[in-house]
Amino acid sequence: MKKEKIMDLLDTVKFNNQGLVTAIAQDADTNEVLMIAYMNRETLAETFRTRTMVYFSRSRRKRWLKGETSGHIQTVKSVYIDCDGDALLFKINQKGNACHEGYFSCFFREKVKGDWAIVKKKIEE
Amino acid sequence: MKKEKIMDLLDTVKFNNQGLVTAIAQDADTNEVLMIAYMNRETLAETFRTRTMVYFSRSRRKRWLKGETSGHIQTVKSVYIDCDGDALLFKINQKGNACHEGYFSCFFREKVKGDWAIVKKKIEE
Repeated sequence: MKKEKIMDLLDTVKFNNQGLVTAIAQDADTNEVLMIAYMNRETLAETFRTRTMVYFSRSRRKRWLKGETSGHIQTVKSVYIDCDGDALLFKINQKGNACHEGYFSCFFREKVKGDWAIVKKKIEE
Repeated sequence: MKKEKIMDLLDTVKFNNQGLVTAIAQDADTNEVLMIAYMNRETLAETFRTRTMVYFSRSRRKRWLKGETSGHIQTVKSVYIDCDGDALLFKINQKGNACHEGYFSCFFREKVKGDWAIVKKKIEE
């Protein structure tokens, strides 16, 4: 994508007062929701340019290339924006697991009879 | 669910400094992501109790029973929490459309060649 096109697209995104937009990562093959995190204008631009998910870590206050140390890269297949422009949905291909706890999805606990139960298996690598 | 069980479960959720938790609504049948919004402790408790999605509107600063005026109710089928406890994923059955603009999902615009293109059809009612 050309630089000017990316700039135009970034202008349509509503970043919050901390300069962040919500990003949902969904497995492109199974439609399983994998994780939710945030991007700022710079890391969203980088994500568009490289087709690899680059978040902004709110806790570390810095750019966060997903999989940089773990190798669990997320490759972007398609991108959607919601009606009010403050949330993005990325359909991705996940290498390995999305969750740092070893599960494919961060949403590995389900409400079962009034408690959270682990309902997914860890990925063997 | 008994009241004390709901209270225990609410204590495991990490609400942000505005008292809100992120809630993703996903169609239980197709796994299509429909919308993202927020809940506070009270509306999350109500959602658990009634199995109907009740958000907290950040703009109106009040309880928001989804579908109260439109009839587009969301019935909860299952609930998942993410690894760090600050996001919830609800698999739901959507009556009518989730989006106030008439689309089944709020994510009806896709990035196509450097622009957002409407890629879904409005629901006829």
